[in-house]
Amino acid sequence: MSINISSHFVFELDEPTDCLMQFEAASLPEQEISSVRTLLDPSDTAVRVPAQDGIGERIWMRAKGRVEVSYEAEATIARIAPDMSSLDQLPTHMLPGEAVQYLLDSRYCRADQFQHFVASRFGSSTGGKRVAAIRDWVAHNFSYVPGSSNVQTDAAESFITRQGICRDYAHMVVALARASTIPARYVAGYAPGVSPQDFHALAEVFLADPNNAGGGTWQLVDATGMASAMDTVKIGVGRDAADVSFLTTFGPNRFLESRVSVHGN
Amino acid sequence: MSINISSHFVFELDEPTDCLMQFEAASLPEQEISSVRTLLDPSDTAVRVPAQDGIGERIWMRAKGRVEVSYEAEATIARIAPDMSSLDQLPTHMLPGEAVQYLLDSRYCRADQFQHFVASRFGSSTGGKRVAAIRDWVAHNFSYVPGSSNVQTDAAESFITRQGICRDYAHMVVALARASTIPARYVAGYAPGVSPQDFHALAEVFLADPNNAGGGTWQLVDATGMASAMDTVKIGVGRDAADVSFLTTFGPNRFLESRVSVHGN
Amino acid sequence: MSINISSHFVFELDEPTDCLMQFEAASLPEQEISSVRTLLDPSDTAVRVPAQDGIGERIWMRAKGRVEVSYEAEATIARIAPDMSSLDQLPTHMLPGEAVQYLLDSRYCRADQFQHFVASRFGSSTGGKRVAAIRDWVAHNFSYVPGSSNVQTDAAESFITRQGICRDYAHMVVALARASTIPARYVAGYAPGVSPQDFHALAEVFLADPNNAGGGTWQLVDATGMASAMDTVKIGVGRDAADVSFLTTFGPNRFLESRVSVHGN
Amino acid sequence: MSINISSHFVFELDEPTDCLMQFEAASLPEQEISSVRTLLDPSDTAVRVPAQDGIGERIWMRAKGRVEVSYEAEATIARIAPDMSSLDQLPTHMLPGEAVQYLLDSRYCRADQFQHFVASRFGSSTGGKRVAAIRDWVAHNFSYVPGSSNVQTDAAESFITRQGICRDYAHMVVALARASTIPARYVAGYAPGVSPQDFHALAEVFLADPNNAGGGTWQLVDATGMASAMDTVKIGVGRDAADVSFLTTFGPNRFLESRVSVHGN
Repeated sequence: MSINISSHFVFELDEPTDCLMQFEAASLPEQEISSVRTLLDPSDTAVRVPAQDGIGERIWMRAKGRVEVSYEAEATIARIAPDMSSLDQLPTHMLPGEAVQYLLDSRYCRADQFQHFVASRFGSSTGGKRVAAIRDWVAHNFSYVPGSSNVQTDAAESFITRQGICRDYAHMVVALARASTIPARYVAGYAPGVSPQDFHALAEVFLADPNNAGGGTWQLVDATGMASAMDTVKIGVGRDAADVSFLTTFGPNRFLESRVSVHGN
Repeated sequence: MSINISSHFVFELDEPTDCLMQFEAASLPEQEISSVRTLLDPSDTAVRVPAQDGIGERIWMRAKGRVEVSYEAEATIARIAPDMSSLDQLPTHMLPGEAVQYLLDSRYCRADQFQHFVASRFGSSTGGKRVAAIRDWVAHNFSYVPGSSNVQTDAAESFITRQGICRDYAHMVVALARASTIPARYVAGYAPGVSPQDFHALAEVFLADPNNAGGGTWQLVDATGMASAMDTVKIGVGRDAADVSFLTTFGPNRFLESRVSVHGN
Repeated sequence: MSINISSHFVFELDEPTDCLMQFEAASLPEQEISSVRTLLDPSDTAVRVPAQDGIGERIWMRAKGRVEVSYEAEATIARIAPDMSSLDQLPTHMLPGEAVQYLLDSRYCRADQFQHFVASRFGSSTGGKRVAAIRDWVAHNFSYVPGSSNVQTDAAESFITRQGICRDYAHMVVALARASTIPARYVAGYAPGVSPQDFHALAEVFLADPNNAGGGTWQLVDATGMASAMDTVKIGVGRDAADVSFLTTFGPNRFLESRVSVHGN
Repeated sequence: MSINISSHFVFELDEPTDCLMQFEAASLPEQEISSVRTLLDPSDTAVRVPAQDGIGERIWMRAKGRVEVSYEAEATIARIAPDMSSLDQLPTHMLPGEAVQYLLDSRYCRADQFQHFVASRFGSSTGGKRVAAIRDWVAHNFSYVPGSSNVQTDAAESFITRQGICRDYAHMVVALARASTIPARYVAGYAPGVSPQDFHALAEVFLADPNNAGGGTWQLVDATGMASAMDTVKIGVGRDAADVSFLTTFGPNRFLESRVSVHGN
């Protein structure tokens, strides 16, 4: 599938401020990126570094005043998405060392406190069946309400209020998967079915690879139902939204506008 | 300096439960570990994986019933500890990609909310001078009170109550350093001066390397004053205590006893 | 029903400290208290004031060093407990002014965030039927686990962890009732069926009085199932546990021991 | 002093929803209210009940669709405001029973956790001197930044971020006063110096009455510096903002607009 991406955002800084940005589609074997056009204004201080788990890049910039960011690209996705329910859970001792952090508590996903809930609600299911049950539970119990959450909302609060946006859905899936001893990370991306159009967020879980005995693979999960593994363009991954925001400023900013447009062909 | 370490802990599990442990001194260029004796009972399911940032190892175990862990080792430390105040801050765009996560919010260290405080309190100082000022502020304003905090206490709460144990001191330093755009991680370790003797926790900050232009080095900071870079044996590192606990169980456990003994020669 | 009560607790204060205590059975039309014996040591600074809603008394004391409190009494209960499910909800505009505070958020019961949950889970039921459904939901989904919560645990956290003690069960019922626009308060009491024996906590809801058109009555609810309206001796009431603790000290204390014994005849 | 008040707000409800409002100046010996004009649209379900501590009235309304509220009044203030620093603290045992609740933790003011901070920061001062020191500390350390806080922000968070609006300033003063064993409540009001013009919030503390030995009086405190006891028109009081919001809805609402205008003559 071929996907056209365009995003644009503007913010203002009263003082010279370090800014960390991650908004470009990542180059990955499973998604080929072409026709890329990134405009940063100002651009003189911008430097790229590899992002978390080597997926995509972060851009550092130190700026003052108005900053404008425009991005356009075309992505071709060739991702294999096995049926979630058919995937086995990897025993913890077979997890690669770098997957272990995705079992642990993070800023927005305090997973440990959900251990009792997942055990009683999702009972004896494990692996992909457990993840599918979690995804369906969130989809059924949550309402998608723009404006109902903010940048401080964590999975605990969403679990109580039962509403939020894609970011909150992703955090909830991540927290419940980790509480089930399934490594789970947060994925920022672009997807054509997101309504209203915006940066999107999904979860990704680490399960046994059906094609590689003893190995594992990351599988996308979207409890909002707005994106699938086949039409999601990954920007980056992290333990939660704190790691992979399109904009993090180390000081106050005034966010002025943003516009995202994603279309599948 | 040569340091003798002995630790021992016992817990009980009613159901078969995945356990993640990290309690052994890490083998590092700066600390040589010898005479190691690790006893796990039961031991049949134990598997080691590399721990965060490649420092030390995590042990996975799946067990039920009583679990007993005993560890003995001798460490020889040859760490260079430059004067903190003499170290410069690295511009963010010169940070290696893998250091960036240590600027971001984590479970126990929500750094962003302290930006206003560090700016007004620690003013124009940067780099090692800023870190020294943070360390001294925590040392002066906090009281070391065993029992005053628990496993849920984060840096925000410690900032309010102004008391805690080594873990809380380390979280506070980490949060204030990150809010100052200085990468900071949490270090679990053993140190002879810790009183009462127990597993210890410190912070570590990433500053310019005086011996390597453009590069950075991690430097230990202990606001409790109980350990120094010269007599701290590192077990492991992480974004905060969630990443490098000596015991994390994915299900309930009954903790029965622990004993730590560390002596310098 | 006649109930014998005995309670005893000891704590220590390093500095002269204001202490607020409420541990005596309240004299109420519905519960007659006799054979009262209260011993405070020291007792020279103790002063009684009426407690919240005029139910029971609070004792102020300013002390330093060891404080020992002993209390014995006999209570005779003549409380009428109508079938919960038969009671109607009072329209909000018919609530007396002093009941309104029991609809609002308090320290341990942030009720507003549960509005979506109660609407979707308890659907169209109102009044006593809604309260009975809430009570049964808590009873079914929560595990009574001494030690699983602490003095900082609020209803939000209990809703996530699904475990706690009587105090947490009461907070959960109070929060869900308030979110249902039913005034709810927290009741501290003594009850013979509490196991292990301790101070007990329940919820109380304000519903239409079947014997007084247009009026309302407070009805006890215990989701732990350990006490009933017929064998609960009220100590006092409040918006939550912050208002009606048996001991609040305005400075640090070392709690040394407590013992509660309650028997029905 | 004579003060002209005008306020206006509009909101929308998709479902029939209970609404609790408190926006009218209270009739009190110290403030005479005249030329009152309250318009509620719709108005058919509105009922008034006495508000907390008998100060002002709450209005209940059950409505669906668009609700519009307009209020105009003229207030004449004759409040005596002794010099704060001259007032003594009342010993706790001399507090009237109804003042005790204002020492305890509430939704936005978890006072207990600040005990260590107030003791170390405000040392040996007590009573009015302590309150003045608290007021000045908040005024000096906080920045007034509209938009920096929201309806969930409590005193703990404000203490960390050091910024907020009048509501946050009031919560901070209330929390620190309670931690100092001084009863403190939250006051909603109108004041001409508030900029930008809006509903205002202040704290009120209970100290010894210089004109009535053994008695106490409530004294207004405004750490924002925008209002004084002489030009503040009280709407109502409560344990914190949860008790005395101008609008509380028991279900979702869409807030459309509000306008407040207050002028002194």
